[in-house]
Amino acid sequence: MTDPVPPPVDTASSRRTRHIGLLIFDDVEELDAVGPWEVLSYWTLHHPEDGWTVSCVSRDGRPVRAAKGLTLGAHHSFETMPPLDVLIHPGGQGTRRLMRDPDHLAWVRGQRGSVRLVTSVCTGALVYAAAGLLTGRPATTHWESLDLVTQLDPSIVLRPDARFVDDGDVITSAGVSAGIDMALHLVARLAGTERAREVRRAIQYDPQPPV
Amino acid sequence: MTDPVPPPVDTASSRRTRHIGLLIFDDVEELDAVGPWEVLSYWTLHHPEDGWTVSCVSRDGRPVRAAKGLTLGAHHSFETMPPLDVLIHPGGQGTRRLMRDPDHLAWVRGQRGSVRLVTSVCTGALVYAAAGLLTGRPATTHWESLDLVTQLDPSIVLRPDARFVDDGDVITSAGVSAGIDMALHLVARLAGTERAREVRRAIQYDPQPPV
Repeated sequence: MTDPVPPPVDTASSRRTRHIGLLIFDDVEELDAVGPWEVLSYWTLHHPEDGWTVSCVSRDGRPVRAAKGLTLGAHHSFETMPPLDVLIHPGGQGTRRLMRDPDHLAWVRGQRGSVRLVTSVCTGALVYAAAGLLTGRPATTHWESLDLVTQLDPSIVLRPDARFVDDGDVITSAGVSAGIDMALHLVARLAGTERAREVRRAIQYDPQPPV
Repeated sequence: MTDPVPPPVDTASSRRTRHIGLLIFDDVEELDAVGPWEVLSYWTLHHPEDGWTVSCVSRDGRPVRAAKGLTLGAHHSFETMPPLDVLIHPGGQGTRRLMRDPDHLAWVRGQRGSVRLVTSVCTGALVYAAAGLLTGRPATTHWESLDLVTQLDPSIVLRPDARFVDDGDVITSAGVSAGIDMALHLVARLAGTERAREVRRAIQYDPQPPV
C-alpha cells in the first residue's frame, strides 16, 4: 500500500524532532487515548531515528480522571508542551463539555493555525465540528454521535461507514477502538507502511472479536 | 454462541457484588491493561445490575509508570482491594522482573488459592508460568515470548495461534491487543453473549487494520 496523500510534514525540510500531542482531559474515553498512545509510543520509542515523539498533554499538566474512572497522567501542560506537528483529540463524555467551552474551542482553533495535521478519535470530532474545523469536509465519529456532528455543522459530509477519514490535514476516526486503526494509518503516513506493519506485529494486532 | 465452559462463579449462589482486579505495575504495557479496562469498565458501569465491579490494583496503591511512559492510577493496593473473583495480569517489560520476584510470585499463588478465574494478557503469562499456575495446561502469550514460557515450565502446552486460551479457571491471551478480545470473551462468560455484543458495539470494535 502506498500513502494515499502526501505526508503532512516535509520530511526533507528539517532534522528537528517533530511532536505528536495526545490531548487528555477529564472524562476522556480511556481507549480513545490509550489505543493511539500504544501505537505511537511503540513507534517513536523503538525508532527515534524517525525523528518523532509523542506525549500526553492536559490543560494544566495534571493527571485527568478518564470517563470510566481511570487516572491518566500528562507529560505536559498547554504551556509547557513543545510546538506540535500533529494533534490528536480523543473523545469521551468530556467532549460534551469541551464542545461548549469557548476557551477550549479557542485553543483548538489556535492549534489548527499552527499544527499541520489534526486528528480526532470518536467524539473528538464534536469538538472539531464545534470549532469550525470540519466545515465542508468529509468526516466521521462514533456511530451514536453522527447526528450531533451534523447538528453542530450541517456542512460536514458524514462518512458513517468509514473506520477513519483522511482528508489530508484532518483525520477523523470512528468510535473508541477505531483510534488504533487511525494511529496505524498515521504511522504509515509519517514513517511508511513497513514501519506501521512492524508496530502492528509488535502489538499483535490481529483482532478476532469473539462475539 | 454459547459459553464453551461453565461460568466460574455460581451466579445463583449469591447477590454480593463480585470483583475483577486488573493488576498494574511499573512497566506494564499500556494497552495490555487499558484494553480490558475499557471493555470491563464499560460493562460494569452500564450494567450494575449484573453485580460486577472492576478496579485497577497496584502493590502499594500508588500510580505506576507504564512501559511506554504513561502514568496509570490505581484504585486499590493489595491491602485495600476487595477479595477478587477474577484477576487479570497484564504483561509488559515489567513482567521480566516480576517473574523473578519471590514476593510477587507468592502473591500470585495466594490469589490463585482464592480467585476462581485468573487471566493474563500478553506476557502476564510469564508470571503465571513462573508461579506454576500453568503446569500441564494449554496457554498462550505474546508471540515473541512463546519460547520463554516453555523455558519457565516445559509442561505448558503452547497454543501459538490462539487469540486467547480458555482453560476453565485460567485464561491466557496473545500479545497486547488480544486483551480486548479476551475481555469481550470474559463478559460473554460472566454476563452472556448479548452483553458482550453490546460492549463491542459501544466501543465500535469493528477493527480494520489499515496495514
